[in-house]
Amino acid sequence: MDLPLPTSERAARSAAAEARRDPKLRIEATLDAALRLCAGEGAPPTLAAAMRYAVFPGGARIRPRLCLGVAMACGEGAPEIAEGAAAAIELMHCASLVHDDLPCFDDASTRRGKISVHRAFGEPLAVLAGDGLIVLAFQALARGAAIAPDRLVGLLEVVAAATGMPGGIVAGQAWESEPEIDLSHYHRAKTGALFSAATRAGALAAGGDPKPWRALGELIGEAYQVADDLHDFASEEAEIGKPVGQDAAHGRASAVASLGVEGAIDRLEGLVSAAKDSIPDCAGAADLRALIGASSERFVPKSLARFAA
Amino acid sequence: MDLPLPTSERAARSAAAEARRDPKLRIEATLDAALRLCAGEGAPPTLAAAMRYAVFPGGARIRPRLCLGVAMACGEGAPEIAEGAAAAIELMHCASLVHDDLPCFDDASTRRGKISVHRAFGEPLAVLAGDGLIVLAFQALARGAAIAPDRLVGLLEVVAAATGMPGGIVAGQAWESEPEIDLSHYHRAKTGALFSAATRAGALAAGGDPKPWRALGELIGEAYQVADDLHDFASEEAEIGKPVGQDAAHGRASAVASLGVEGAIDRLEGLVSAAKDSIPDCAGAADLRALIGASSERFVPKSLARFAA
Repeated sequence: MDLPLPTSERAARSAAAEARRDPKLRIEATLDAALRLCAGEGAPPTLAAAMRYAVFPGGARIRPRLCLGVAMACGEGAPEIAEGAAAAIELMHCASLVHDDLPCFDDASTRRGKISVHRAFGEPLAVLAGDGLIVLAFQALARGAAIAPDRLVGLLEVVAAATGMPGGIVAGQAWESEPEIDLSHYHRAKTGALFSAATRAGALAAGGDPKPWRALGELIGEAYQVADDLHDFASEEAEIGKPVGQDAAHGRASAVASLGVEGAIDRLEGLVSAAKDSIPDCAGAADLRALIGASSERFVPKSLARFAA
Repeated sequence: MDLPLPTSERAARSAAAEARRDPKLRIEATLDAALRLCAGEGAPPTLAAAMRYAVFPGGARIRPRLCLGVAMACGEGAPEIAEGAAAAIELMHCASLVHDDLPCFDDASTRRGKISVHRAFGEPLAVLAGDGLIVLAFQALARGAAIAPDRLVGLLEVVAAATGMPGGIVAGQAWESEPEIDLSHYHRAKTGALFSAATRAGALAAGGDPKPWRALGELIGEAYQVADDLHDFASEEAEIGKPVGQDAAHGRASAVASLGVEGAIDRLEGLVSAAKDSIPDCAGAADLRALIGASSERFVPKSLARFAA
């Protein structure tokens, strides 16, 4: 006989069931659980606080949304594997934001509309928060995939390749310190790699073939890069929550510089359209196209909306 | 019919067979293979160089030696799993040295007898080299364990826990930034965690039970911490290849400060002896005791050898 559940446990189970239906809640719940383990017995409390500060509140969570979206489109059977992969990708992204904002890189004072981690907690804890988030990402991935270890090897390779050397976000950031920059490698590594990993990891998590999903990730990654250039050029700092005009200030390559504003918006719209068209035939294709449409609405800055088709 | 091998391939196979017999060569070969993949197609060349610089030439490689030693004592059947685990632990150690030497921490100008990474390559590439090495460590682990994915989940958890939060080397370093330091958590995390992971990962890699091997790692870790304090107190910089007198300069806790020189040496000898005694009954126990004896010979600085029993 099942005993009646105490109210608090019933509420928790109901919240968990609700969270399982809503991708955004699934991502926040998985990230929250990862950060709780980090702050466990014996943790230095200020670093635990700095890591949580770096992850919450998040931005659009576009990469983990994409990862979960592909897993659902592939008919995920084991939701925790995709949730672990999505959380891992978002944690890597958060780690890269913390380190990219350091004084020796962009020396950014704001991020996601609040004070950057190194300004709020000091430089030592910002370095360590980034390090800790990278490690936590792999833990989230492994915990999610513990029920199907044979999927972990492939997932880990996809997430690691998108993060480290020779072609992940760490490599992308390093191109800014090279005497001669390879622009194609730079953009693919700095922005494209994690998007491409998001779609492929989503497929792998669902037990699917990652290859047909590579184009979707790469196209969204390119679109996001153009969108970022447009925002850097045109937005008010308050609108995007981080310093603007950084490309021009640092002499960095930008789609706006090479194509002009209207050309860059045309390119962005072409990439989003190609991304939607690249989605392989599957049960969840329509939902995924809707997700991409909704996500890409924020891609053109408000102040440039008059240029958009 | 087997065709005769070309001389170069025969030489390579013979070198590989030779390397498989010698733990030191196995470790160097695995680290070298990992760093080669890092420098592959599309890699930013200066970061690839900085990462290699951070790993070669190494120090005593005491943590990966311990890991392989335990795996061999447990009768390893799949050498590549233990090699991947040993390399992962050493890469995490190298990453922590690069980040700990940064200007916002110790601002060390030398490490392992040469110019520190941030002095040689600049601060941005030192931050990224550390990040890249953490990611590479997980890749080395996963590649080694690809033939037995069911062992990867446990290995990853052990290596990640020894590196990240709440009790790994990142947490240990963070205690130095807390307003109140918990000395027991600090030492266990900063030094003990990676040693304890080395012995447990060695057992896991060989398909064994990690629990009986925890004490060995913890005791060696404690002995190493006392040895480090003695070196910091007494050595010439040229002897240990990094700045000395840092504990006193930074007001850090030290076994020398609390026990005096002779007391610290007594403690060190007691810990090494207890470590040897803690080795579980197994075929390779004698070899492992010999390895620990040989490794611990460098624990007492030359200038203090007159105090040792």
